[in-house]
Amino acid sequence: MHAFSRLVGGAFIGLCAFLAAALAQAQTDPLPSWNDTGPKAAIVAFVEKVTKAGSPDFVAEPDRIAVFDNDGTLWVEHPMYTQLAFALDRVKSEAPSHPEWKETQPFKAVLEDDMKTLAAGGEKGLVELIMATHAGMTSEEFQKIVTDWIATARDGRFKRPYTELVYQPMLELLAYLRANGFKTFIASGGGIEFMRPWTEKVYGVPAEQVIGSSIKTQFEMKDGTPTLFRLPEVNFIDDKAGKPSGINEQIGRRPIAAFGNSDGDLEMLQWTTLGSGNAGPRFGLIVHHNDAEREYAYDRNTEFGKLDEALDAAAVNNWTVVDMKTDWKTIFPFELK
Amino acid sequence: MHAFSRLVGGAFIGLCAFLAAALAQAQTDPLPSWNDTGPKAAIVAFVEKVTKAGSPDFVAEPDRIAVFDNDGTLWVEHPMYTQLAFALDRVKSEAPSHPEWKETQPFKAVLEDDMKTLAAGGEKGLVELIMATHAGMTSEEFQKIVTDWIATARDGRFKRPYTELVYQPMLELLAYLRANGFKTFIASGGGIEFMRPWTEKVYGVPAEQVIGSSIKTQFEMKDGTPTLFRLPEVNFIDDKAGKPSGINEQIGRRPIAAFGNSDGDLEMLQWTTLGSGNAGPRFGLIVHHNDAEREYAYDRNTEFGKLDEALDAAAVNNWTVVDMKTDWKTIFPFELK
Repeated sequence: MHAFSRLVGGAFIGLCAFLAAALAQAQTDPLPSWNDTGPKAAIVAFVEKVTKAGSPDFVAEPDRIAVFDNDGTLWVEHPMYTQLAFALDRVKSEAPSHPEWKETQPFKAVLEDDMKTLAAGGEKGLVELIMATHAGMTSEEFQKIVTDWIATARDGRFKRPYTELVYQPMLELLAYLRANGFKTFIASGGGIEFMRPWTEKVYGVPAEQVIGSSIKTQFEMKDGTPTLFRLPEVNFIDDKAGKPSGINEQIGRRPIAAFGNSDGDLEMLQWTTLGSGNAGPRFGLIVHHNDAEREYAYDRNTEFGKLDEALDAAAVNNWTVVDMKTDWKTIFPFELK
Repeated sequence: MHAFSRLVGGAFIGLCAFLAAALAQAQTDPLPSWNDTGPKAAIVAFVEKVTKAGSPDFVAEPDRIAVFDNDGTLWVEHPMYTQLAFALDRVKSEAPSHPEWKETQPFKAVLEDDMKTLAAGGEKGLVELIMATHAGMTSEEFQKIVTDWIATARDGRFKRPYTELVYQPMLELLAYLRANGFKTFIASGGGIEFMRPWTEKVYGVPAEQVIGSSIKTQFEMKDGTPTLFRLPEVNFIDDKAGKPSGINEQIGRRPIAAFGNSDGDLEMLQWTTLGSGNAGPRFGLIVHHNDAEREYAYDRNTEFGKLDEALDAAAVNNWTVVDMKTDWKTIFPFELK
């Protein structure tokens, strides 16, 4: 073998080693849909720190609690919350049994697709819609209604089931945290019984790790069958200052990591990461929607998922801000197929 | 070797084999503090049935949810609920900061050890006591108060910490269920934040698997530190018909096994075991306190832990009833030392 072929051979072997290493890294990269920018590095550094036995930042497994907002953090919340789309669909499908709805607001507006009048009805109108469509049946009946709807409903822009409009980088993050001994919880302003029928399948988060808003239920024995009847009465709103209370009520320990995208998540992020008595490593992250092309762009001036105060707080408190456009290689799982 | 020595030798070998088998059985018996009577057999049969892959009664691991009442089911509730003993102790230790209590009921009665007047004050008086001793501080402060109290307080009869007055057979049952893929939850009428500081250590049940009564909390940022302030306002009473609602709210799926001891557990047992839509194997068990010598004897006529309707329902619904006197070999862990 003369010098040239030896050189080429050596280069080739070097190239092979390089490619093999790159391949191995690609195969073992737990966050392949994240670009190699700041947020990915911050996540990995945090996880490595809290899982390194003997390190001063080590956190015992039972205390590795991570909480995730849902709308806008794990799945799309624009142009309207999916749960509102569900309520509107329910009004339409139940309208034949409610002839009075044709003449009564906010139902009339829904049936006439008059979003302007609906919006003018404000929060009062929305609560009426929610109660009319989420109460008045048993928990099991509601679970079936949600399960059937989520299997068939399609988003207007992407023409896909809502459960496909989840963020691939966040799915990877959930799995990465669990692989590192974290228990992952959802803490959402959305209805707890609207999420539970599908969170395990879609996010790997079981029903008992879902925290959300709820209405009151009433236990009744009917012909020997126990039922929980859903009353048209608010039990708990798991949003803003409610999130720490909901987390405390259902988990009973302080999370060490919180993931949100809006001002509704501000107090959850504060509760998780701040405070003189809250020792040890903590991690806060905000998903900033700035990719109108692949998803949506909104922050300080929007009706759903307003990100204003929390964005300012992120800078002050050293929370990681995900710039969707530059930090996420892939947005949706279907892009990978 | 002549015939006699061969005979003796054979008998000896036989005896050894017998002893070894007995020893192996004793070592592998997951419920050694249970006598070999009906309840133990029923528990083992149920667990073997739902864990046997391929059997029609097989239950997938995530659905193996078991719920346990606490007072009278996992630990002693006589002569008064431990949480009430805590409230009385707190009134006494806080009295110097509340000179007005000397002249105000129900505090006056507590300070004078006048149980008769206290009892006459009824539920209204009790709620006042609970609010005065359980609210008005942050969650973290309350957690520390409970942790300190439970470490030092002693029961009047057994002269031991309350956390030693737990039932050894139930500790074995909790461990046996978990070893078979069950997730064990507490669903107690007691305060959720009164239990959480010690349930993991004592029962192996982590905070997030404790359901209980609660008062409202309010999130506040104080000098940059987030706090949850405990308000003197009832949030949820996890007793009687409240238990199925609490279980549904926090777990979000139907348990397949429930363990209680009083009428306060009736609806939880119904919710767990009954109903046309509630298919598959289900298990209900009631601890019947009938051992005044080793513990206490009470059922249909008692102030704490009344067992009347639920005892009748047990016969109708085929729930297992534990007769403490005959079914439990050991009552308390300290008997084993």
